[in-house]
Amino acid sequence: MKVHEFLDGLASPSPTPGGGGASALLCSMGAALVSMVCHLTIGKKGYEESEPELKKILEEAEILRKKAEELIDKDTNAFNEVMASYKTPKDKPQRADMIQAALKNATATPLEVAGLGVRVMELSKIIAFRGNINSVSDAGVAMLAADAGVRGALLNIRINLKSVEDEAFKGKMLTEIHELEEKSNGLREEVSGTVSFKLAN
Amino acid sequence: MKVHEFLDGLASPSPTPGGGGASALLCSMGAALVSMVCHLTIGKKGYEESEPELKKILEEAEILRKKAEELIDKDTNAFNEVMASYKTPKDKPQRADMIQAALKNATATPLEVAGLGVRVMELSKIIAFRGNINSVSDAGVAMLAADAGVRGALLNIRINLKSVEDEAFKGKMLTEIHELEEKSNGLREEVSGTVSFKLAN
Repeated sequence: MKVHEFLDGLASPSPTPGGGGASALLCSMGAALVSMVCHLTIGKKGYEESEPELKKILEEAEILRKKAEELIDKDTNAFNEVMASYKTPKDKPQRADMIQAALKNATATPLEVAGLGVRVMELSKIIAFRGNINSVSDAGVAMLAADAGVRGALLNIRINLKSVEDEAFKGKMLTEIHELEEKSNGLREEVSGTVSFKLAN
Repeated sequence: MKVHEFLDGLASPSPTPGGGGASALLCSMGAALVSMVCHLTIGKKGYEESEPELKKILEEAEILRKKAEELIDKDTNAFNEVMASYKTPKDKPQRADMIQAALKNATATPLEVAGLGVRVMELSKIIAFRGNINSVSDAGVAMLAADAGVRGALLNIRINLKSVEDEAFKGKMLTEIHELEEKSNGLREEVSGTVSFKLAN
């Protein structure tokens, strides 16, 4: 799918791709920018010491980037299952259980996206420190895109949780959401601080 | 360009597309999600009162989305001019002036991206309030993507400003950056608050 087609699809009256798929794409963009900064640092004079670490980060970022791309489609499928469950005839006795199962299932992909995005933010923190100073703004954008992806994914978990009736499941997920929020808050501040410092000096 | 090709390009050793183009794409994604929420609200029962306003927002969001897409390429061109100016032979007397002109010019596109992104955030605030409650998470992701685009664009202004010698120009741009930061901070909090409230109730 072409970029402008994806944007057309996002803007269209169809609910997919929507905020869930967009969140996965945001994380993929963050990972891609981490890779770019690694490429623009490895082999450059003055960065010899960081090279072994950056090579490992590049490898991990490429895996995360492709994984996040896969999650765009996975999110669409989970959403379609929720829609399908609501369209089950109202007199079918399993209907309520089917809806509950689909809703719970639809929280799994955004949870994966959010966890992946936090990892991209951790990588962006290292490259903001150790990457080519001429690309420090790109390290910052990597963090920002991944952060938006994490937050967006957490909103998608919460909108599905809203109709989940299993209180134990809800409680467990809300704890996970809270932890991921805390982590992304901390990373956002740390990376912003490093990038701002390097841009001012 | 296909989505995975864009991501490949972002991740590649070439500095374009980089954080600047990504920031424009982030704003375009935000605008696209604003449009989607408008589509998913207009004509739906219970939202009759909001319809005239949402139709106007949809129209504006579509203009912003396409404008932001154009700015992806415009950013690449401005960056390439900076690179070209640095490659001017060192004995050419105009070299320093050419570099300074290219750097100043390269702040214009991200400034446009940031202003556009703030407007997308303003639209996301209205649709978070008035849009279909079932799409409130999408309104949230619209704000998050645009916010990341604004912040990313501001980093791209700052990295170019770093080498600008005209102190009056720098001062003027830093004031603009500060104002856009304040605006996006405020909108981020407001939209997050509205979305969180609606997700919890």
